[in-house]
Amino acid sequence: MNRPVVLISLESPHAFWRLSADHERCLRASFADVEFRTATEANVPHQLADAHVYFGWRFEPSWLVGAPLLKWIASPAAGTDHLPVAEARSVGVELTRSYGFHGRPMAEHAMGLILGFSRGLFMSQRVQRNRTWWKDDLAEEFFDLAGATMTIVGCGSIGGHLARAARAFGMDVIGVRRAPPAPSGDGITWMHASAVHEAVAVADVVVDLLPATPATYLFFDHGLFTACKPRSLFLNLGRAATVDQSALLSALNAGHLRGAALDVFDPRPLPAGHPLRLHPRVVLTPKSSTLCHTYMDRAVAFFADNLHRYLTGQPLNGLAEQPAARSHLAGG
Amino acid sequence: MNRPVVLISLESPHAFWRLSADHERCLRASFADVEFRTATEANVPHQLADAHVYFGWRFEPSWLVGAPLLKWIASPAAGTDHLPVAEARSVGVELTRSYGFHGRPMAEHAMGLILGFSRGLFMSQRVQRNRTWWKDDLAEEFFDLAGATMTIVGCGSIGGHLARAARAFGMDVIGVRRAPPAPSGDGITWMHASAVHEAVAVADVVVDLLPATPATYLFFDHGLFTACKPRSLFLNLGRAATVDQSALLSALNAGHLRGAALDVFDPRPLPAGHPLRLHPRVVLTPKSSTLCHTYMDRAVAFFADNLHRYLTGQPLNGLAEQPAARSHLAGG
Repeated sequence: MNRPVVLISLESPHAFWRLSADHERCLRASFADVEFRTATEANVPHQLADAHVYFGWRFEPSWLVGAPLLKWIASPAAGTDHLPVAEARSVGVELTRSYGFHGRPMAEHAMGLILGFSRGLFMSQRVQRNRTWWKDDLAEEFFDLAGATMTIVGCGSIGGHLARAARAFGMDVIGVRRAPPAPSGDGITWMHASAVHEAVAVADVVVDLLPATPATYLFFDHGLFTACKPRSLFLNLGRAATVDQSALLSALNAGHLRGAALDVFDPRPLPAGHPLRLHPRVVLTPKSSTLCHTYMDRAVAFFADNLHRYLTGQPLNGLAEQPAARSHLAGG
Repeated sequence: MNRPVVLISLESPHAFWRLSADHERCLRASFADVEFRTATEANVPHQLADAHVYFGWRFEPSWLVGAPLLKWIASPAAGTDHLPVAEARSVGVELTRSYGFHGRPMAEHAMGLILGFSRGLFMSQRVQRNRTWWKDDLAEEFFDLAGATMTIVGCGSIGGHLARAARAFGMDVIGVRRAPPAPSGDGITWMHASAVHEAVAVADVVVDLLPATPATYLFFDHGLFTACKPRSLFLNLGRAATVDQSALLSALNAGHLRGAALDVFDPRPLPAGHPLRLHPRVVLTPKSSTLCHTYMDRAVAFFADNLHRYLTGQPLNGLAEQPAARSHLAGG
């Protein structure tokens, strides 16, 4: 009898990114006919020889050579730009990302960043040590979320979560994507990617959730920042490569943008003294928008559902497209 | 014919706290039989002589002497502790506060402060200039709002707004007040003030919305902070007098509290070098939680409704109670 072998390598210094003993027990209990093995990242190449399925954070292109039986690489991450999508496809290996559970923490993260600017909280934290009183300055800076407009560029399932949170605060939400869905009562006004300049021109807050593809490279360039509404706020929770950082800095320095909050930037980390680090109207977070204490619970559940599909010959969820072919405004 | 005289003094450096020409036109158009006069604050005492109604931010006890016809003092503010409630009552003058429109900006403010801690945004802003990378530290600090518990102490109409925002993020909400209402499908678990120690013991976030009354003086004392759940977050958006600041600092320094966000503190402003200014896990805002660009629109609408009640002999909304008699956990 030839039991399918699943190799799992999910290491992290943080519990919520590791496979726990409970997760492992659950998987073994749910799939009695599967042989699960776990490996440290360093040992993955040696243990891939007889694995049919790999579930892990990293996969190096070179590992494919020593994995003759491999049929499927499953990643717990939302994005696939760090994974060998094209190389895997060329040797007939499927590669899946995970989705459906990044939206909640990212919506919390984005709303926190927006409210940090809109309520003058970042300004307050910056000056509370040295300024006697700053209420008049804050009164000139704050804005109300109720009635303000958020434009989400690359509005996929994560954008949908964010849109719901924004609407709970009374914001109007515009979703931009290459193939806008039919109106569905979700309260989002959909606009086609070709109208992105119009979509950002009316936004008090612009949120970049674009994936990194050749088509989105430096998508936010000088022209698009110039099209933004004066005094608007820019957030990037997607991928650094979608933003021309010099153009962003120019828009900030010209006072055209009120501020920027970046969870991604290039290089990572930014060098000491980089103008984005020092800018008083820029808040940087360390690619932490998806941090979530239930992350691995959800990722393992997503994988288990997909493993059932794999074993029963159904198509896998979250199949990565070839980078060049990816919907360049799908969002994530 | 004896037209009622309404004296209005609503000055501010900020447009949203001033009476605009539009507001004035609206009032005159709605109440043709009323004589509206406006006064600078300095001129109020001189113009009160023949006023029946006063609508303004400030009212000094001494002004009552020169206002023999005055029947009603209307304040656009939520609280009345800066107004001569007892003195007015003793000479038969009614005094009203305003309500129903502070909740939205205060809910934005509170959620921004909470997310600033829960997503590590304040930590990030503090270290982005000097630390190379801080994701591991942030990963140890953050917490998920979904599934976390917020306890609102003094949960009135403002607390209701905040509860709705918190529930939109998946938080469980406990409302504490002296006279809890009947369950009403608002998603709030109500607890009596006598159980406040139990209510804070299960909360990841405690929000103080208590009004300032003799009964709430230093309500958050050493005992109540000690009863808080370890690593919980404390917010005060109510009144400074409800918090023993030394007890708060002890709880912070002992690491018992994760952090504190204070929109009110004593004295205001805090002196340079005050430990609450310098504490790395304290964020201060300059009594800015009610800042809202539609503030005066809403306050004038509230006043107009009440003026109609006054002219038609109906009871006024928002009548201030005697300080000593006020519901000490009503919130508001």
